[in-house]
Parts: sequence; structure tokens; C-alpha cells
Amino acid sequence: MEFTAQAIAKFLGGTIEGNPDVIVNNVAKIEEGFSGALSFLANPKYAQYIYTTDSSIVLVNNDFVVEAPIKATLIRVANAYEAFAQLLQLYAQSKKQKSGIETPSFIHNSAKVGENLYLGAFAYISENAIIGDNVKIYPNAYVGDNVKIGNDTIIYPSVIIYEDCIVGNNCVIHAGAIIGADGFGFASGEDANYKKIPQIGNAILEDNVEIGANTTIDRATMGSTILRKGVKLDDHVHIAHNVEVGENTVMAAQAGVAGSTKIGKNCMFGGQVGIGPHLKIANGVKAGPQAGIPSDIKQEGSVVLGSPAIDISSQKRSMAVYKNLPELRNRMSDLEKIVKELKTRLSDQ
Amino acid sequence: MEFTAQAIAKFLGGTIEGNPDVIVNNVAKIEEGFSGALSFLANPKYAQYIYTTDSSIVLVNNDFVVEAPIKATLIRVANAYEAFAQLLQLYAQSKKQKSGIETPSFIHNSAKVGENLYLGAFAYISENAIIGDNVKIYPNAYVGDNVKIGNDTIIYPSVIIYEDCIVGNNCVIHAGAIIGADGFGFASGEDANYKKIPQIGNAILEDNVEIGANTTIDRATMGSTILRKGVKLDDHVHIAHNVEVGENTVMAAQAGVAGSTKIGKNCMFGGQVGIGPHLKIANGVKAGPQAGIPSDIKQEGSVVLGSPAIDISSQKRSMAVYKNLPELRNRMSDLEKIVKELKTRLSDQ
Amino acid sequence: MEFTAQAIAKFLGGTIEGNPDVIVNNVAKIEEGFSGALSFLANPKYAQYIYTTDSSIVLVNNDFVVEAPIKATLIRVANAYEAFAQLLQLYAQSKKQKSGIETPSFIHNSAKVGENLYLGAFAYISENAIIGDNVKIYPNAYVGDNVKIGNDTIIYPSVIIYEDCIVGNNCVIHAGAIIGADGFGFASGEDANYKKIPQIGNAILEDNVEIGANTTIDRATMGSTILRKGVKLDDHVHIAHNVEVGENTVMAAQAGVAGSTKIGKNCMFGGQVGIGPHLKIANGVKAGPQAGIPSDIKQEGSVVLGSPAIDISSQKRSMAVYKNLPELRNRMSDLEKIVKELKTRLSDQ
Repeated sequence: MEFTAQAIAKFLGGTIEGNPDVIVNNVAKIEEGFSGALSFLANPKYAQYIYTTDSSIVLVNNDFVVEAPIKATLIRVANAYEAFAQLLQLYAQSKKQKSGIETPSFIHNSAKVGENLYLGAFAYISENAIIGDNVKIYPNAYVGDNVKIGNDTIIYPSVIIYEDCIVGNNCVIHAGAIIGADGFGFASGEDANYKKIPQIGNAILEDNVEIGANTTIDRATMGSTILRKGVKLDDHVHIAHNVEVGENTVMAAQAGVAGSTKIGKNCMFGGQVGIGPHLKIANGVKAGPQAGIPSDIKQEGSVVLGSPAIDISSQKRSMAVYKNLPELRNRMSDLEKIVKELKTRLSDQ
Repeated sequence: MEFTAQAIAKFLGGTIEGNPDVIVNNVAKIEEGFSGALSFLANPKYAQYIYTTDSSIVLVNNDFVVEAPIKATLIRVANAYEAFAQLLQLYAQSKKQKSGIETPSFIHNSAKVGENLYLGAFAYISENAIIGDNVKIYPNAYVGDNVKIGNDTIIYPSVIIYEDCIVGNNCVIHAGAIIGADGFGFASGEDANYKKIPQIGNAILEDNVEIGANTTIDRATMGSTILRKGVKLDDHVHIAHNVEVGENTVMAAQAGVAGSTKIGKNCMFGGQVGIGPHLKIANGVKAGPQAGIPSDIKQEGSVVLGSPAIDISSQKRSMAVYKNLPELRNRMSDLEKIVKELKTRLSDQ
Repeated sequence: MEFTAQAIAKFLGGTIEGNPDVIVNNVAKIEEGFSGALSFLANPKYAQYIYTTDSSIVLVNNDFVVEAPIKATLIRVANAYEAFAQLLQLYAQSKKQKSGIETPSFIHNSAKVGENLYLGAFAYISENAIIGDNVKIYPNAYVGDNVKIGNDTIIYPSVIIYEDCIVGNNCVIHAGAIIGADGFGFASGEDANYKKIPQIGNAILEDNVEIGANTTIDRATMGSTILRKGVKLDDHVHIAHNVEVGENTVMAAQAGVAGSTKIGKNCMFGGQVGIGPHLKIANGVKAGPQAGIPSDIKQEGSVVLGSPAIDISSQKRSMAVYKNLPELRNRMSDLEKIVKELKTRLSDQ
């Protein structure tokens, strides 16, 4: 597909500087621009590239000040980044959509599927499953007994959803993610052998949840493991049984949450963060990468770092001293020597 | 299914306090109880809820002391938690079991399968595989050449078992787990290119092993990677080539063990723990979450924490000082000033 | 297959000490040797075992000095480890290779496949995909629209390759790995809701790349996530969108790299290492297990450790003091007391 600068400016409600007839058929980062590409400039760190880029069109913020000649056609908008995201969305939607029921695939005769289902070959829908409208289930995905999936949800290849789980509307579950596998629950008997505690609850994903590739959301022992509306999880994240994650909370790759912990809304967790079991984490908490959270965080909006995680500014101060610990120890030894000498001299008097 | 308090008490050998005819058809946590639900009280932290719960029946320990009126019918047993696990087991077993060979599925004509096999659609059993009795292999699972699987084992969807691996009786392997992928072995030649070292060993899971979703157990370079009887691994765990994990050792999610390490029995490893290569870890060792174990642990029953991991009480003492490092540094600076002054005064005398 | 010592020595260009007619049909670690097995000795730590091993043949370096009687036949070569790897390779190649197109499998009629393809049952090749010669695609694997796969590449079961991605020649992708799932990109609007930023780039694996089980390589927002020639990644590794990993760089299990970071060639990263976003890491950098890298590493060949990662020798010095922090604090308190006393005495004078 091709668009003129004029068409794009009209769509975005922006104003043009330069040739309104220039045509783009692709997108590129401003520093990797080429003829026929659309780019954007939002972060001032990248401003230098606008004077050298080969992109044909660049979206810029209304307040961008031109300081040298620019080859590209500019389109000024209120927020260049958001406008660009909007165009990407349009572009993504313009791509050919999968549709129809491929064969062989498996739909149990008791399952109910909505309108406009895409079901890839080798995908499997079990007994009594209920699938909404406009759902896409890619090849080799598995939807267990009694599972409910809302409208407009995308289930990528090899996603496994165990029995009784519930997935809301407009969710995206990436390849290899496992929803509703047994929580890790064992009781130790008199001997050292563990006895499995059946995990008879389920996992619930509310609307607008996105789950990364190979992420695991375990089912609850009883009741439900719950991801509230708008939760976004990156790849390889682990959510243990009976955890609840609040609305619009996001977690980067390889983060993990232990059993029964309740996390507030609008939180942000960095990559490889670990959160202990049976905790309460307040709304708006942020934890830096690799943080280990061993206890409740009660203060809304806390920002923590380190393992064990503490307030980020305290942590950074301790980290700074830590790097110089050998010097601190040497100063201590020096001081001990001096004091000892002083003591001797004082005693001699 | 519905049960009276009387039927449950009889099954558990417990004694009833309250209405023996009350009926339950579900289970719930005591703090989330509702009419018709069975709950249990084991942890004294939750004792408060027994006076307000809407659950119809609560299992309690024989020595539980009632301190206020309770609406629910109580059933007293020796161990309320174990009794509850026993009932859950019963409940889980009562669920309809998958059975039969679904189509299309793939069984190589040289493979031998036992009685009462469940084989889901799109599951694959390769050449010379030998499958025991009462085995369930869910859709999209893959069983490689020459693999042996014992009786009563459950292989969930999308589990991949590479050629030559052996899985014992009564094992559970959750969705997306990969058994027997190549160990990470490369030899660096004269140039910077790596040459693959073929991994011609296998992976062995003894009886009663449970493997979490998306966990990986690599095959040995030569010989076997071995998980001994009763090992339980959570989701996203990584066991490298030639590792041996002792009986009844358990690992929480996202823990990883590097190549050729030998871990004793009855150990417990927290989430995100990392264990280095070529180590020996004694029996009964416990490591807290995110611990990094760089060297042998010879003392049975050691409890370690931190990265690098050291004895937990030493670690906690160091952690306590660490948090106050900036203060310690300031005290040092103050003291240096004072001592310098003292020295000057002493020299002046 | 069976080989005599003579045949092996001839193949390797080595020299025999002992019976040239002894026959082996298996390989074993020297410490686990048995009659009929071939072993090797490269690491002097294992030298003791050569005098007791039951292996029939042991490969040793030319400069190995015999200090006691040895039962096995020795074959002397320039590099025993490499020679052994060479033999393993030979052995692996001698195993029966999968071939042919199994049914049911799915090849879109617009896809082009090369000669000598192995396509397992339930594997899926999408629209306009282009597959080279001698490629093996195992059961339940998925190859998305427009994907290109080079010659001699192996795609193990349940590997998922999203649309538009490119895989080079002679690559190995282990089971459950996900290539090209969406990068983790969301824009936060005026409210707390996140808006998905479509990820319209792809992921590129150049030649000779090996990807471990359940590893994830996300597609770029725009442009490409790139793994250069010879990159080797272990299991559960995460490579975020727009990352570039240089030639022959290797990463151990559970390591993760955040978005847009550019890593040099010939680097080595230990298990569970985390690397922050938008960084540049120089060539030849090494990071120990669990390291957390928060900023650029400009110095080629740097070796770092810890979280945050610093130069390994500084880190080890700080770690040593850290372990004794309580003692350091006590010394401080003692000194403060002494100094206070001295001060008093001096004032009293």
C-alpha cells in the first residue's frame, strides 16, 4: 500500500511542511531511513538524524524547531510518537487477516464457537468450550474443557489453555504461553515423599490482557488466579497459583510472582524481578530489573530496587558505597592503627 | 457431586461438631467461603475467619479451641491440611477422565502402547517408543524415537520428549515442558567459531516426578541427565546436561542448574535460584529465592541465601549492615576527622 | 556400529599404545567407563581415572605422560577433546535421519520447499514460506507466512516461527523456541490503559545459529531483531525486540536482553544474566552468572560480575568485604568508643 503525505496528514489532522505528494510504502527508524519510508521524531536525542535521514516523510511534534535544511517532508502533529503508533496500527490492520476453519482441526461437538472464527490446522477445541466472535486460534493451539474465550481474542500457535480457564475479550496470547497448568502444591507426608495437592481452581484473564511467548499462568489450588483488565506480561513471565495482578500492571520478561500474592494496579516490574509468596503490593509500585521483593509493599507508588528490594534511592546510595567497600575497609584499618598509636602516646604522657 | 458432613467425617475418620446433615458440593478458602462449600483451617493466622466464614463445613485439627460461636459444621481430624488434600484428590479423581485414541493422531507402527491409553488428536508417538498402561498423552504432545514411558503417567499438551529419553511411572509433565533437548555444548576451534558437540546421551525421569509448564530438562552429552524418584520441578526450571537431582528434591519456578552438577535428596530451591556447573550439593540443602550457588555445599541441611549464596544467618546480618552502608561511611568520615583533630592536638602538646 | 582402535586411530591420524584390535561400540565418560566404550582424557583433573577405567579405548593428548599401568588401549592425538567431539559428530551423523513428508501435515500451496525436506506430521508451513534444501521440520512445528529458512536447518517439534522471519543455513532451533513473537511495546495513553504498538518488523537468524529449547526471540517494532552468524543461545533465553547479537556470541540458560540493545561479537554471558535496554556491549565481553548489566560496556574483553555488574576483580573484592560487614560495623563501633574515650581524656588534660 502507498500513501501520500497529504493523505497521512489528513488522517492524523497534521500540517505538512514540504512536498505533499511524496509517497511512502513502508516505515523505518529515523536513523535507518530510506526513500519511500515514513519515520517519526519524538525523542530529542534523535533530533540530529532528521537532517540526514533518507526517509521520505517524518512525523514531528508541533513544537519541533527546524535548525537546518531537511530533505524529508515533515508532518507536524500534537504527539509524533502516538501518531506513529496510530499509523502502525492502521498498517497492521491492513495486513491480510487469517480466516476460516482449516483441516484437520478438532472441535468437540459440545463446543460452541462464535462468528468469524479462524481455527488453524491441528488446533484443538475441547468439550464444552465456548468461543466468542472474531476469535483467531492459530495452528497447534489447545483449548481445554469448559474454557471460555471472549470476542476478538487472538490465540497464537502452541498456546495451551487448560480446562475451566476463562479468557476475556480482546486479549492476545503469544505462542507457547501456558494458561492454567497446575500450581506448584505438594504436602510433605511423614516420610520425605511429597503428596500432590490437586489444583482444582482455574485462571482468569480479564479483557485486554496480553501474554508474552512462553509465559505461564498457573491455575489456583482453589478459586482463581486472576489477571485484571489491561494487564500486559512479557515473555517467560511466571504467575503462580492464586496470584492476583491488578489492572494495567505490566511485567517485563522473566519476572516471576510466587503463590497467593496480590499485586495492585498500574504497577511496573522490570525483567527478572522476583516477588515472594503471600504478599500485598500496593498500586503504582515500580521495581527495577532483577529486584527481589520479600515482603509487603504498602506505600502506593513506591519505587524499589535490589535483592532484597528497598527504596531505590536508598539502594543506589548503598550500591555506591558497596563498590568502594575495600577502600572503606582499608580506611578502617588505617584509622585503627592511628588510634592505637594515639592511645599509646596518650598513655605514655 | 454432593456430600454430607457425616459422609465426609466417616471417610476421614473425623468427629463432627454441628449439623451432620449439611451438604457441600464445592470447596473454598475459609476467607472466601460460601454456602455449600467445604473449607479447612490449619494455619492459626487464619483462625479469625472460622467465626465469620459462610462455608458450610470446616475441617479443623483435633486440638482446635473454639473461642466464639461458629455457624459452620466442624469436622475434627488429626491433620486438617492433609485431610483436605485427601478430599481434593478424591474430588480430582472423580472428574471425567480422558480416554481413547483421538484422530488424527500418529503412532508409528513399531511403537508399543499399553492398555487404556488416552492419545489426544495431533499427538505423535515415534518409532520404537514404548508406552505403559493407563498413560494419558494430550493433544500436540510429541514422544520421540525409542522413548519409554511408564504406567499411569500424564503428558500434557505440547510436551516434547526427544529420542531415547525415559520417563518413569506415575509422572506428570505439564504443557510445554521439553525433555531431552540437546545440552549446551560447543567446542571453540582455532577461529572464533564454535563447533557443536553432539549430545548423544539422554534424560531419565524416575517414578513420581512432576515437571512444571515450559520447564526444560536437557539430555546428557554422554550418559544421562537424571531426576530421581519424587523430584518436583515448578514452571520454567532449567536442568542442564548431565545434571543429577536427588530424590524428593523440589525447585520453585525459574530456578536453573548448570551442567554436570549433582544435587542431593530432599533439597529445596526457591524461585530464580541459579546453581553453577560441576558442583556437588549435599542432601537437605535449602536455598532462598534468587540465590546464586557458585561452589559445592558439603554440609547436609545447609540453608543459604544471596548471590553468591552464603549461610542464611550470615547473609541476613550482612544484608542488615548493607542497607545502612551510607551511614557507616559517614560515621567513618566523622571519625577520621575527629581522629585527625585529636592527633593534631596531641602533637601540639 | 563397531570400530577397532586401529580404525579410529587411522581416522584421527593418531598413534596407538596397546591392543590395536580392541573393539568399541559406545562412548562413556572416563570415570564411568565400561568394556566396549571409548573415552577421552583432556582435563588433568581426571587423569587419575585413566588408571582404573574399564573403557576399552581412551583418547589422550600427545603429551600425556603415563605414570602407572593402564588397561585401556590409548590413542594419542594433538587434542583429545576435539578428536572426541569429531568422533561424536561422526556417531551422530550415522544415526538414522528423518526424511519424507508425513501425513497429515500442512503446506500452503503458495509455499516453496526445497529438496529432501523432512516434514513431521502436524507440522505447518504457511503462505509464501520458502524452505531450503535438506531442512528438517519436526512434528507440531509452525512456519508462518513469508518465512524463509535456509539449507540444512533443523526445526525441532513445537518450534513456532512467526510471519516474515528469516532463518539462515545450518541453524538448529530446539523444541518450544518462539521466533518472532511481538516485542513488548505499549504506549500509555491519557488514562492508565496501554495501547499496543504494533510490532511490524521481523527477526533474523543468520547462518549457524543454534537456539535452545523454549527460548524466545521477539520480532522488531520496525526493522529487525538480529542474531549474527554463529550465535548460540541456551534454553529459556529471552531476546527482546530490536536487539542485535554479534557473531559467535553465546548465552547460557535464562539470560535475557532488553529492547534495542546491541551486543558485540565473541561475547559470553552466564546463566540468568540480565542486560538492560538501549545499551551497547563491546566485543569479547564476558559476564558471570546472574550479572545485571545496567549500562554500556565500552571496553572490549571486559569481564564483569554482580548486579549491578562491575569489573570482576573489583566485584570479588567488594564481595569479600560484604561477607564480613557485621565485623566491620563492630570494629567501627569499638573504634568510636575508644576515640570518644581518648577525646575525653585529652579534654581532661
